Amino acid sequence: MTAVTRILGIDPGLRRMGWGVIDFDGVRLSYVAGGTIKPDTELALSMRLAELYRELQHVLQQMTPDEVAVEETFVNKDARATLKLGQARGIALVVPALFGCAVAEYAPNMVKKTVTGSGHADKKQIHAMLGHLLPKAQPDSDDAADALAIAITHAHNRRAARLLKIATA
Amino acid sequence: MTAVTRILGIDPGLRRMGWGVIDFDGVRLSYVAGGTIKPDTELALSMRLAELYRELQHVLQQMTPDEVAVEETFVNKDARATLKLGQARGIALVVPALFGCAVAEYAPNMVKKTVTGSGHADKKQIHAMLGHLLPKAQPDSDDAADALAIAITHAHNRRAARLLKIATA
Repeated sequence: MTAVTRILGIDPGLRRMGWGVIDFDGVRLSYVAGGTIKPDTELALSMRLAELYRELQHVLQQMTPDEVAVEETFVNKDARATLKLGQARGIALVVPALFGCAVAEYAPNMVKKTVTGSGHADKKQIHAMLGHLLPKAQPDSDDAADALAIAITHAHNRRAARLLKIATA
Repeated sequence: MTAVTRILGIDPGLRRMGWGVIDFDGVRLSYVAGGTIKPDTELALSMRLAELYRELQHVLQQMTPDEVAVEETFVNKDARATLKLGQARGIALVVPALFGCAVAEYAPNMVKKTVTGSGHADKKQIHAMLGHLLPKAQPDSDDAADALAIAITHAHNRRAARLLKIATA
């Protein structure tokens, strides 16, 4: 029997938080589930964050992933947008941590490079590769697609990340 | 019998999160408790956020505030610092929201103006006024002192905030 690792990828955002779950047996990837959390934009900020929290908690409870990977936020020049993203990202990181899951972080160009071979791939190229790697996936948003790409990135890099951890321990 | 409102003020931060609780009977303020949450800086980001979450949850469980006020983050020019603060702020907002508390936000100069009369007061002036308004308080850090100032700001402005809400409803 081969041990299967269940990986949850999260693409954090305040308006839309994408998530995607895959199983990885060390060789093959298979699609499990995915979706997009969209908190009511009419709510106060604290309530929107609470909605993200509850829905993400529900995903963790239903999916029981072994490991979680979150996209490293692109730090752009708009401080207000960065702050909003930071707040959503706090939720994306804390919910898995409270479940006792290890959370890995990957930069966007690392995700692009792992999935397509190029750190400068565009969304179209990523989605085309996703269709190839996870033929059963039907992501309901770009964010859900990105979340699957992050989960795949973790599947390919977790061994290296782990070996690095052992070497530096 | 006068209804007493218990207010929790929070000064969010990833290294140090200050909190302070006061009771307000409509006229008088009284100090209840306060402190500083300092997550282990050696931990991974997700675990630091989980520590902030658990400690803040403990404060809410112990103190059972009626209303919560959080300082609006100063959006500075360092995007990395803004992102970090955003992540901590996400925790400061979501924990009270999950407890069902209304969360108000106040800009730093509003806090300064309410406590000292001037929007440009320095830390020394704020701390001097805190000693006057809440003589029993012995804040263990600048962040804990700021959290009390935020709670006082809410006590003074909650009626206006509420009336505004009714007027625009």
